[in-house]
Amino acid sequence: MSTIRVPGFKFAGVACGIKKSRRKDLAFILSERPATAAALFTTNWVRAAPVIVGMRRMRRGLIQAVVINSGVANACTGAQGVRDAETTCRETALRLDIDPGLVLPSSTGLIGLPLPMDKILSGIEKAAAVLSDGSFFQAARAILTTDRFIKTASASCRLAGKQVVVAGMAKGAGMIAPKVATMLAYILTDAAVEPRCLRAILRNAAAKTFNAVTVDGDMSTNDTVLFLANGVAGNPPVRSGSREEEVLLNVVKELMGSLALKLVEDGEGATKVVEVRVQGSRSSAEARKIAYTVATSQLVKAAFFGEDPNYGRIMAAIGRAEVPIKPERVDVSFDGVTVVKRGVGVNSTEQEAARVLKQPSFSVRIHLRQGKASASVWTSDLSHEYVRINSAYRT
Amino acid sequence: MSTIRVPGFKFAGVACGIKKSRRKDLAFILSERPATAAALFTTNWVRAAPVIVGMRRMRRGLIQAVVINSGVANACTGAQGVRDAETTCRETALRLDIDPGLVLPSSTGLIGLPLPMDKILSGIEKAAAVLSDGSFFQAARAILTTDRFIKTASASCRLAGKQVVVAGMAKGAGMIAPKVATMLAYILTDAAVEPRCLRAILRNAAAKTFNAVTVDGDMSTNDTVLFLANGVAGNPPVRSGSREEEVLLNVVKELMGSLALKLVEDGEGATKVVEVRVQGSRSSAEARKIAYTVATSQLVKAAFFGEDPNYGRIMAAIGRAEVPIKPERVDVSFDGVTVVKRGVGVNSTEQEAARVLKQPSFSVRIHLRQGKASASVWTSDLSHEYVRINSAYRT
Repeated sequence: MSTIRVPGFKFAGVACGIKKSRRKDLAFILSERPATAAALFTTNWVRAAPVIVGMRRMRRGLIQAVVINSGVANACTGAQGVRDAETTCRETALRLDIDPGLVLPSSTGLIGLPLPMDKILSGIEKAAAVLSDGSFFQAARAILTTDRFIKTASASCRLAGKQVVVAGMAKGAGMIAPKVATMLAYILTDAAVEPRCLRAILRNAAAKTFNAVTVDGDMSTNDTVLFLANGVAGNPPVRSGSREEEVLLNVVKELMGSLALKLVEDGEGATKVVEVRVQGSRSSAEARKIAYTVATSQLVKAAFFGEDPNYGRIMAAIGRAEVPIKPERVDVSFDGVTVVKRGVGVNSTEQEAARVLKQPSFSVRIHLRQGKASASVWTSDLSHEYVRINSAYRT
Repeated sequence: MSTIRVPGFKFAGVACGIKKSRRKDLAFILSERPATAAALFTTNWVRAAPVIVGMRRMRRGLIQAVVINSGVANACTGAQGVRDAETTCRETALRLDIDPGLVLPSSTGLIGLPLPMDKILSGIEKAAAVLSDGSFFQAARAILTTDRFIKTASASCRLAGKQVVVAGMAKGAGMIAPKVATMLAYILTDAAVEPRCLRAILRNAAAKTFNAVTVDGDMSTNDTVLFLANGVAGNPPVRSGSREEEVLLNVVKELMGSLALKLVEDGEGATKVVEVRVQGSRSSAEARKIAYTVATSQLVKAAFFGEDPNYGRIMAAIGRAEVPIKPERVDVSFDGVTVVKRGVGVNSTEQEAARVLKQPSFSVRIHLRQGKASASVWTSDLSHEYVRINSAYRT
């Protein structure tokens, strides 16, 4: 696979010894000029130090470099953690000869340990030395933790006659839950986009992508989704309400959707990717609530792993979502095979339904017949491997 | 162990072939006279047929017999399910020569299958033939499904000079969640208690017992807690606000607490029983919300199984409970061993904390320093055995 290039951006991914495995654990993303930036951060009340610092950095709306380490989350590290994140930015800026206020830090990994600053500083030096526009995959690799594969995507489109590139990298496998699905992601484009428009595109695209996936319902302290537009393509800045905005939004939505699905596919121990779709709801908020309750039910996810079309567990999860429903109207189907009709279990389709669940990917459709709203959540199954990974001492 | 007797009550537990294992699967509880009754039912919007019928029965506030089957839940069975539950009550009343309106039905087991009425009817006949005041444990056994052991408790106290007995039996191992923790339980006393007072005692005792345990956060369609007082002891009926109410409440609370802990101990695949206690909260509702979020976190429960004092996962769960907190004030300890102090991870106590987690039972205390309210939730760990049990085809 040839590498992904985004005009005006350089990348680096190096190993500096934070991970005992000696795998890559420090990444740079550098734009040749300050880029317009939009970001989403975790809604967890417990925020990691890099998130606290990152939120401050976003006030100016301009970012030129991102420094990311994996292995240690720099969360629950108090004032020292914030100082360490600031030092990381300052040293990065020094090496890259840019304004420290334009550097955003990210960390992912174990909560509670202090950043090993000697390793970080040597990593910064190393990364600065190997920065290149062809190192996108190296950076994408250096941000991983328990992930089994790198998650990248790229696309291009024409905006007002100029060809532009959009590319993204993401990490995440455990602690994946809606509301900025517990993860790191960096979306980069050489397009010029007005700040307000960039924020709207990110918010809008995240709603049905990163905010609609779950692995275990656990939300991290470090979630960050950053969207940088450096304008190197030379197009007139994309404005809210324009046709170009629509074009760019669609590209970003598709790209983020592809990254989000990769998060679920790589869910810790996942053997299945399942879309839980709720239709006929009175509001999309209620549809989301039900879809999310079904998608995070331990019993439902264990049944997916066992390839058991156990619709009873799905009905029980629907009923406890704290959304008023009329059970006697509810239909449930697996890839079109009806297993509950008007609230009553259909047992004649059991073998057919079991065949659907043998597939690596399928959809569960729940029809409430109460309205016109709908929502989807993507989830994985609950396997022995999930328990093995997460019960190993200090994973 | 000698059996439990409750004056004026008879019991039966028989096998009628609903369970393929040929284990006991039908139980009777019969009072020699109509008993004052209080009940709590599932808050799931999807209610099993016996719950729908049982709610109707409770309008009169008097119950004389309970007929319980295990193996099939009679849920998602539509109008036929309700007819089958009614038939079960009618046939039971006929055999016992009592008013069918005084019979409450319960079912537990697989959702979606119709009640096998031929087996049920033969079971009713069999059970009626073996009813006796010494068969408490037989009934307690017949209501089990995936449970590994029977759950019973008894106590006695003096009420206005009369000695009275209170005894309870419960079932439940999976689909255990707060709000009438997904389960069946029958609390019986020979005391006379005024209806309003009986309801208040049940509600009050359930709040910190059955409503404070969780195994997997999944709530069933069949939960029923029934409290019967037949007055055979001859005490003046216990009234709200009296000293006797207080005495009886304390006995019932302790008895239900002991049954609730047995549910967690028998949690599917459980190797640990953990109390998650939140203190220093602004309200007990907020404390409960945080305790419940931590107690149901897959990542936290997998760490308990791995005996890993991974406080980072606890902090992440606290922060996503949708309760505003000040992370820099939060302390977390395992049986008194501090692992988070004012929001910062304490790593010097790691070995000591790991020793606490090796015990079969321990407590996690979370201090928020925001107020004076508190709450506890009891939970189990997430083990390979849980996945094995719940991924087996149609458990």
